[in-house]
Parts: sequence; structure tokens; C-alpha cells
Amino acid sequence: MRPVILHHIASLASLAGPAGYRRSADMRDVSPLHDASIVIVDGHIHWVGRSTELDRATAPDAEELDCTGMTVLPGFVDCHTHAMFAGSRHDEFAMRASGRSYQDIAEAGGGILSTVRATRTASKRELKRTTARRLDAMMEHGTTTVEVKSGYGLSETDELKMLEALHELRQEHLATVVPTFLGAHAVPPEFAGNPGGYLDLLITRLLPYAARKGLSDTCDVFCESGYFSVEQTRRLLTTARSLGLKVRLHADQLNQIGASALGVELGAISVDHLECIDAAGIARLRGSSTAGVLLPGASFFLGGPYAPARDLIDQGIPVAIATNFNPGSCMSFSMPLMMTIACTQMRMSPEEALTASTINAAAVLGLADRVGSIEVGKAADIIVLDAPSYRSVAYEFGVNLVRRVIKNGVLLEFP
Amino acid sequence: MRPVILHHIASLASLAGPAGYRRSADMRDVSPLHDASIVIVDGHIHWVGRSTELDRATAPDAEELDCTGMTVLPGFVDCHTHAMFAGSRHDEFAMRASGRSYQDIAEAGGGILSTVRATRTASKRELKRTTARRLDAMMEHGTTTVEVKSGYGLSETDELKMLEALHELRQEHLATVVPTFLGAHAVPPEFAGNPGGYLDLLITRLLPYAARKGLSDTCDVFCESGYFSVEQTRRLLTTARSLGLKVRLHADQLNQIGASALGVELGAISVDHLECIDAAGIARLRGSSTAGVLLPGASFFLGGPYAPARDLIDQGIPVAIATNFNPGSCMSFSMPLMMTIACTQMRMSPEEALTASTINAAAVLGLADRVGSIEVGKAADIIVLDAPSYRSVAYEFGVNLVRRVIKNGVLLEFP
Repeated sequence: MRPVILHHIASLASLAGPAGYRRSADMRDVSPLHDASIVIVDGHIHWVGRSTELDRATAPDAEELDCTGMTVLPGFVDCHTHAMFAGSRHDEFAMRASGRSYQDIAEAGGGILSTVRATRTASKRELKRTTARRLDAMMEHGTTTVEVKSGYGLSETDELKMLEALHELRQEHLATVVPTFLGAHAVPPEFAGNPGGYLDLLITRLLPYAARKGLSDTCDVFCESGYFSVEQTRRLLTTARSLGLKVRLHADQLNQIGASALGVELGAISVDHLECIDAAGIARLRGSSTAGVLLPGASFFLGGPYAPARDLIDQGIPVAIATNFNPGSCMSFSMPLMMTIACTQMRMSPEEALTASTINAAAVLGLADRVGSIEVGKAADIIVLDAPSYRSVAYEFGVNLVRRVIKNGVLLEFP
Repeated sequence: MRPVILHHIASLASLAGPAGYRRSADMRDVSPLHDASIVIVDGHIHWVGRSTELDRATAPDAEELDCTGMTVLPGFVDCHTHAMFAGSRHDEFAMRASGRSYQDIAEAGGGILSTVRATRTASKRELKRTTARRLDAMMEHGTTTVEVKSGYGLSETDELKMLEALHELRQEHLATVVPTFLGAHAVPPEFAGNPGGYLDLLITRLLPYAARKGLSDTCDVFCESGYFSVEQTRRLLTTARSLGLKVRLHADQLNQIGASALGVELGAISVDHLECIDAAGIARLRGSSTAGVLLPGASFFLGGPYAPARDLIDQGIPVAIATNFNPGSCMSFSMPLMMTIACTQMRMSPEEALTASTINAAAVLGLADRVGSIEVGKAADIIVLDAPSYRSVAYEFGVNLVRRVIKNGVLLEFP
């Protein structure tokens, strides 16, 4: 593997620091450097420093990229997506514009279950193909690590089809793919009125199988009115933990039913959404090991309230940002656009948004020792953007500023 | 010029109809067609219809584009931009995220005047070069007609430098460029405390010169507290009209000072912004010939209120959407993203957003007989998007879905 040198980088945000969550003021230190260079050897970062101090002898015969006028960042880590799905829900989007709520539409048979119908019809091969194309596009937009959830199968056959497709993509695709088991995304029509029966299926068959086969090391639940109650969620996630899985929750999105508090009780790695978290929920998170994953695109797309990012950060809770890419509540995989929404609607600073989209998101996925920052020894997941400063990444919105993507030291080419 | 045939278009929104404003329910009729074809001859639209009825003999030796699975639309018309500027204001963006308002920043010497300083320093050649690159990018994102305002010069030399640069770009660039004179964008530092003196300069020298030389056929004013009062605006625009120019106003953006009512009084072609328009202002617009140009990106970017799009449309006022692309209040030139914001934050339907971004915007610029819809005889300004329906254009956001751009019948290639 030929070494790579990035030279004369106008603005480098390396995010150097501890290989774990950054909290409070630490979220505002992105370790910026001007006129910097990076040396990549054997897929890893070998050296980072000022261009004037570059020693080319450490990387003989390297391919050299002139990054004059460019910004360089760690590849984005998108730690919450539903990127594997079939079908399109643009008509539902039009319905929402005419005033109908996400819950209205779900109750009328649209919503998650309409994607479940389409995903059940699709073959594993088809799901892999469409998801691989989305992962390609995500990488082209700077995302080098992607969490993807199951949860549009909701039957033994179809959840396993999704998990197996994700497992294969994980081995075949250049992006780092982290699969999460979300069998409890909604109650499938076969168990309408009998959520307990569906939970039994998850607990006795799907979850043990997925854990044993190593299809996912994390279990997630949509803990929400009309989906899974706090009691049901506790039952499922307790089983998941006993099987050695990490646990996460979709918490406090549409209603406050105590989901984020349950997440802390269960030692969840993250509680995601938090649009409706209250002071008590924030107090429970404070001092816990549970992170808050904020999904600015969902609030924007649904026209709903935003999670209280300022409060969460100011109270020392580690915060990550993700796209929540899915056909119902956020049909976008653009991490920079999520940063723009975070800065303009949630009062996060560009530095906080960047930390939340890289190292903190890597920490949510347990990968902070390998990705999420540009430091010696880490995987060379690096993006080059046509922007004069890392601050421009959230500022110049609605356009893809990414010009080069390096994944594990490989310079990617896009068609 | 070789004819072009677009064949097997999955979803065509032709926007066929009267060559002028669409109001109320007419904004929701985008004349959709499935499995359609378009024949382009000599840069113009020669035929539009069902693929099964295509007669290739009308366009011998045509280049044929297979549009299976694709959406085809008229090129977007961006009828309000400040796309010619120098410098970057990403640091101001960071200040706003930390809680400072647009007005605060302007009062502290930032805002428009910081771009004025950078633009005065730039040569005409440099302004042309950077603006041409922006126009290239805009076309790559589907915009084929662009209005661009002066207003970052604010001195005789520098306003003329901008107008001349725009005049040359108009002749040299593939995009249709419509220059607007916005000498009254702010009071320059040389006239601090003496706005009347600057108005005198505009009225006695710049405006007559620009009109005589044909540098612009439209005069615009930032009618706003701290910028130009209703009285000053009336004085300037009355002069403009007497010189044969059309007039427009930045109206009701930050404060309600009667700007949109003044627009109606003066027969303005449009009043733009309208975030603070009140019931009286809407009543004045109703039945007038003045259109409302809404700038969803500015409200989004500044975190402020949105213009009451629903009220305006429901009361029969013709509404257009534009990006307001500028370094202070909307650093984006993406028309599709403005449509997404309009649908998710302003309750416009995808159809209304599309009408507002094409034919109604063309009507604002006096070009509705030539562009803004796909109809026989019109210029062939057509875009092909990788989307299953025209409704997906606002739905799949944060990504450029445009795959081909045809401008005046020419198939553009992008690097």
C-alpha cells in the first residue's frame, strides 16, 4: 500500500485528544492547525504536524496531495441510521406538508409499516445493492463509518434477511459498517394488539440467534407511546444485556414516557433523539456513562421541536450528532447538513457540531480508539473539503464540499 | 445544433400553463406526466408528450437520453441572489451560533459591510472569476436562470465594477444572468450618519448611469430599520421608475415598517423576504400586480421566523421562492434545499414549492414567456434528476439529485 502525504492543509481540525467522549468545553476544542501535513503509512496515520516540519523520508514514494486552500477533517461517523430500506415515501412527505403529523400518518397505515411492507418484498440481494449505493453516496459526502439498524423486517425471516445483508456489507463494503439489531422498531401487523407476543419472539428467538451468530453486538428499541413501553423496553434490553449485547434506545422523541431515564438505569451506551427530554431526564443522564445522540434532521424534517443541545452540552453530557437517515423522518444522509441544522437551530457552535459528528459519534459506537480523530496510530479515515476553514463545513450548506475521501489509507475515486 | 430527445421520463413536471404567475390552487398543478418524452430542436422545446406518441422523424439524428426512472423538470429560476461577493463570513456564522443576532453583528461592524470591504478590494476580474465558478455550481445543481444583485460596492467605482462584471458575465456565461442594481443595500461607511448624501449619489449619478448604459433594468432597495427608510426608499424607487426601471424591495425582513405596502404603492414587481409581513400588508398585496418572493434559507440560516407562505398563497398572492444566496444570511445556492425548507417549515406542498421555484420565479424576472416551464416554443432549459417523482426533489434533501442539465438545448458536461 503506497503511503499518502496530505500537504499544505489550510485548515486542519484533527480532534486530537482522549480516545473517548469529549464533554462541555472540551467539545469546543477541535485541535485546529494551519498549514499542516499528514503522513499516512499502511492505512494508518503515521505523522501529523506543521508543513514546515514534514520529513518525507518517513514515507518514501508517497502519493502527495496538495491541500492548499483546503480543509481536512476526520471522516464523519454517522452513529444512527436506518440506511437499509426499500421503497420511497415521497407521497407521505407531501401529506405532512399539507398538515398531517408523523403520528397521524403512522396511524393511517403509513409510516414505518409502509417501509416494512416494501422491505419484506425486497430480496437480500436487492437490499444489499440499494444499501451499498447509499453507502457509496455517504462516503462521497464524507461519512466513512456508518451505523445501520435493522427494523424494517419485523418478522423472523425479514429481520434476519436485513441482519445478514448488513453482515455481508460489513465485510464487502469499504465503509466501516456497524449493524444494530432493532427488531423492536414497531409492532408488526401480525402482532397488532399483541405486542407481548412479538416481544416473546424477539426475546426467545431473534435476539439469541443474532447474538450467537455475531450479526450485531448492540440492541436498540423504539421506546415510545404506540411503539414499545418502558416496561416492554426494559424486558427486551435486560435480555439483550444478559446475552452480552450493548443496548441503545430511541428515547423521548415524540412523548416523555421516561425512556431516557430507563436508558441510564440499563447502562445504555446512548439514548437517541431526546426532543422531549425534561429536566429530570437530563439530571439522570448527568454523571452517567450514557451519551445523548441528537438527530437534528428529524426535527427539521418533521417540523418538530429540537433536542435541548445547549443544556445537554452545558451540563456535561457527551453529545453526538447523527443523520437518522430513513425514508420517514429524515431522507438525508448529509452529516454537514446536520451540522448546519445543529448550529442554526440548536445553538451548537461549529466546533461542538464537529466534535459531535466525529470523535463523540465514534465513542458511541465503541470505535473512539480507531476512528473519529486524526492522530498517530489511528486508521487513516480522512476527508478533504473545498473550504477555507473547518467552520465553513456547516456554513456553506446544501452543497457537497468533499473533494477527496481517504478510507483506511485508500484514496477513493468516485464516478 | 444537434436535436436532443429525452425519452421514457418516469416523472415529468412540465408546469405547462399561462406564461405568467400561477396563484392559489393553480400553484398546485404542475402538469405531471408519466412515461413522457421531450424533443428539443434548435435550442427550443419542439414537442412534449407521451413516449408512446414520440415521432422521431421530427428530430432526425437527435441525441437520445434514456430517462427511465428519472424525473425531469424545467431548470430552476433563482430570482433573488447576491451571488457576486468576495471574502467569507464563516466566523460570523460561529458568532451567531453563540447567540448573537444578525443585527448585533452588523452593528459591531460585521454583516454586509464586512463583505463590502472584501468586495471593494477585489478586482473586476476576480469578481467575475469567483462568480462564474458559483454560477457553474448553481447550474450543476439545476439552476439555469439566476438573478444577481450589486450592493457590495456601495461606492460609484465599486458598484459600477460589480454591474460591469455582471454585464460581462451575462454575455459570457451559459447561465441566464439577470443583474439587479442594489446600490441601496446599506449605507456605506463614507456616508455614516448621512444616508441622504448617499441617496443623492445614487439618484443623481449611479442610477442614471446604470440605466443609460443598460447595466440593469431593475432597481432594488433594502427597506429596513437601520438601512433605508420608507421615505428614502420611495424617493429612490420613484426616480428609478422615472428612468424606466422596474423596481423591487427587500421588505418586512426584520421589522414591519411598511415596506411591502410601499412596494404595492410603487407597482414593484416583487416584495422580497416578508418574514414580518402583517395582515394589512397581505391585504395590500392581494389584487395588486406585486409578487411575494420568499427566501426560506434566510429564515433557516438566521433562525428567525418564516414568511407566512400559506396565508400568501391562500389569499391569491403569487409566490416565488429564491435562495437569497449571500455570505451573511444564506450561504447556499441550492434551490431544492429551499424547496425542502418551504415544505417542512412553511407548509408549502411540493407542487407549490416547485411552481414557486420555476414559472413564478421566471415571471418575477419578466421571463415567463421564455423559461420556467417545459412547453413548445420555450427555451430548452431542462434538468434530469435521479428521483422517482418530482415530489422527491424536496424530499431527498442535502444531496444533489441533478444528473443532466440542458441549457438552451445544450447538454452540459461538468468536470
